[in-house]
Amino acid sequence: MEIANLPIGFRFNPTDAELLYYLKKKVLSLPLPANVIPELEAFQFNPWDLPEISKQRSDFGEGGLNEKRFFFCKRKKNLMSKCSSCGYWKSSGKEKQIVAGESNHVIGMMKTFVFYQGRNMKTQWIMQEFTIAGHLKTPFLDQRLMMKVGNWVVCRLYQRVMRARNHGAAELGHSIAQTTPFIPMSPWSSSEITDISSSDLDE
Amino acid sequence: MEIANLPIGFRFNPTDAELLYYLKKKVLSLPLPANVIPELEAFQFNPWDLPEISKQRSDFGEGGLNEKRFFFCKRKKNLMSKCSSCGYWKSSGKEKQIVAGESNHVIGMMKTFVFYQGRNMKTQWIMQEFTIAGHLKTPFLDQRLMMKVGNWVVCRLYQRVMRARNHGAAELGHSIAQTTPFIPMSPWSSSEITDISSSDLDE
Repeated sequence: MEIANLPIGFRFNPTDAELLYYLKKKVLSLPLPANVIPELEAFQFNPWDLPEISKQRSDFGEGGLNEKRFFFCKRKKNLMSKCSSCGYWKSSGKEKQIVAGESNHVIGMMKTFVFYQGRNMKTQWIMQEFTIAGHLKTPFLDQRLMMKVGNWVVCRLYQRVMRARNHGAAELGHSIAQTTPFIPMSPWSSSEITDISSSDLDE
Repeated sequence: MEIANLPIGFRFNPTDAELLYYLKKKVLSLPLPANVIPELEAFQFNPWDLPEISKQRSDFGEGGLNEKRFFFCKRKKNLMSKCSSCGYWKSSGKEKQIVAGESNHVIGMMKTFVFYQGRNMKTQWIMQEFTIAGHLKTPFLDQRLMMKVGNWVVCRLYQRVMRARNHGAAELGHSIAQTTPFIPMSPWSSSEITDISSSDLDE
């Protein structure tokens, strides 16, 4: 299924475990449930310059800042590969274990990166890098070792949402309120409902 | 399209404007893009007792807390109707104007409610109530009045996400880390990748 065929309001918004499911298929070269995650060395781009290929378009705006985008990237250990022309991705916080469903199985690891513009200007851009975790039974130690496996990672890119009071749209709404007074009213008659057809909600 | 036919990772996760698009169709008795929002007097239920009808199931757990659910409810002005058997929904913050796309058109209003258990125990349950906003041209005043229209509202229910450090899953992950040491390693050979098949990622 392609993104273009989805009804309004539906989007690819996988949980961490679902994302690792796609990654496992990719690592094992098995068919993916949907062709929705492009291959791209996402860390080499400035986040705002990333090609539109994985953008989930909508005519309804508003969701732009919350939109999440996903990429398959080749797994690299080198932190130097996390630089773009305008800045760099700096890892943030501890690596997190992803646990499958209600079991105790660790199925992957997630590392979070924040984009810094120039030398040290922290931005709102966040990249989460997921890796599959495998287990290795050791004949010598009485325990199982866990390690990252596969030559691919999957990344989730998004912008941290600002609080409403600082948000441009909210301020815009406030200025509109000054010119068009708001009157809460009881349910409207059917003839008056047609008034809303002038809004941008029209197809 | 029914939810059950979607590939893994796809869900109904509309923006505010998209949700108002569904509501407008409902108010005007026009066909909806998808049969995904049930009619239910959601405010009369304890949030944890709400029927499973609008739950977007997944075999991958993990997303449970972040899951959003949607309901069409009859519009009521009466705050008393926002009580359930175990508590009540209290409005929180100012009503927010929803603006369509990049235009300045206010297409709806959003009111946020928090569920209080018993007399005053605040919970993590949040209900956002969306109403369509219409405009009325007044022959006497030199301005347009804005008002709520239609006999339906649409509600988005979710649980506020706890910070990772307080989150049960994160603590669980920590205890696992103590029993299964983690070793970051370079890309794995194909024979060793099969080790991950024991995880819960399997279909």
